[in-house]
Amino acid sequence: MNKELPRLEVCLSPALLHLYDTKGAVVVIIDVFRATSTIAAALHNGAKCVIPVAAVAECIELGQRIPDSITAGERDGKVAEGLQYGNSPAEYPAEFVKGKTLVLTTTNGTRLLHMVKDADTIITGSFLNLSVVCDYLINSGKNVLLGCAAWKDRFNLEDTLFAGAVVNRIQEHFSVNCDSARAANALYKQSGGKDFIHFLRDSSHYRRLSAYGLQGDMEYCATPDLHPVVPVLRGAELVVYGK
Amino acid sequence: MNKELPRLEVCLSPALLHLYDTKGAVVVIIDVFRATSTIAAALHNGAKCVIPVAAVAECIELGQRIPDSITAGERDGKVAEGLQYGNSPAEYPAEFVKGKTLVLTTTNGTRLLHMVKDADTIITGSFLNLSVVCDYLINSGKNVLLGCAAWKDRFNLEDTLFAGAVVNRIQEHFSVNCDSARAANALYKQSGGKDFIHFLRDSSHYRRLSAYGLQGDMEYCATPDLHPVVPVLRGAELVVYGK
Repeated sequence: MNKELPRLEVCLSPALLHLYDTKGAVVVIIDVFRATSTIAAALHNGAKCVIPVAAVAECIELGQRIPDSITAGERDGKVAEGLQYGNSPAEYPAEFVKGKTLVLTTTNGTRLLHMVKDADTIITGSFLNLSVVCDYLINSGKNVLLGCAAWKDRFNLEDTLFAGAVVNRIQEHFSVNCDSARAANALYKQSGGKDFIHFLRDSSHYRRLSAYGLQGDMEYCATPDLHPVVPVLRGAELVVYGK
Repeated sequence: MNKELPRLEVCLSPALLHLYDTKGAVVVIIDVFRATSTIAAALHNGAKCVIPVAAVAECIELGQRIPDSITAGERDGKVAEGLQYGNSPAEYPAEFVKGKTLVLTTTNGTRLLHMVKDADTIITGSFLNLSVVCDYLINSGKNVLLGCAAWKDRFNLEDTLFAGAVVNRIQEHFSVNCDSARAANALYKQSGGKDFIHFLRDSSHYRRLSAYGLQGDMEYCATPDLHPVVPVLRGAELVVYGK
């Protein structure tokens, strides 16, 4: 019996999403610097859920409505006006975030998440939860699209490198006929498959965030498996899968 | 005196072209399998010019109007109905193509070429003219956008690998702050910087064209510097630069 393997593809930018069939698939939203890293950290540290929203105004409005909520988000590397906290994964230790609802506004990651309409399941991925995301995808038995949030629709290195790390680990369980997946995997291999931050230091995003003094954040985001939870979208909320 | 270097960027798909400022720049159209390879071969072998057109009907019409012309183009790996020849670079030896006008219809490459509106200059690139294209770009002193034709807007490996080969050779003469350029260069390094066809054998396009028995064409297209001319767009015609 030759069981057909599910499909594994990589979408390098939200501007290319329309080229992929996400119906019935698991879509992994990837925004390594820093939205999906912060989401993994907050949920692993006990946040009740994370609500990703696009606009600062919506973030403020939800924060006023939801008890025990934290509003967070940055614009140009600073806490956005009217919000309480930033977009740094290290800002959300257990003693602060446990039991709370984190209302998080980010630009690229949230936009992509809201663009996916007909997937079976939407989860978020980052180096912080690399292994559990891979296990989840293998166990799902479904077609998978790894969706890079990119930067204002521009290809970025960090999201693609993470996609490559996933492809490299799970490809034998899937049918891969996608040049983006092959290229992401080649990038991963070129990076040496470890010490991701070294490879990412030349990226545009690393340079941009470094100008805001956020090198520590990026080192944090490049640490594999520090926050081993799978954030899964239920309605408007990201919650820990299996909990 | 600290002279500012011109910008070097890579656009991975026509669907991302709007993200780049091509005004005053040199844009290199890249469609390795096989449009820009065939263009280099035909012009190096003495064709008067190559006229790239999008539609088969337009190709036929121009062929009827222009003396000493050849109409060529494929759909699904076969010579398109109503045209005389295919899209194989090996089909255009000097004894056949010398002095002729090649009216060539291709899908991805031609489309991208016609999408670029405000560039200073449009040239075409392929492994067959890699070194002369690199020399041209260095000497131009202008901003450069390497534009991958891709496959129906999907990222492809062969065009990106060629872009990476160019980035690798010319980057020291440019300011490179573009993750696509970094990734293309990393792919090039991952390929070992030679024996391109070995690296490309797993690509979607190689597999698709192999099903049509076109492996020989692809080996040909992956041979560096076999046809050292720079095709440059003058009006609707691609001609040899400097001639």
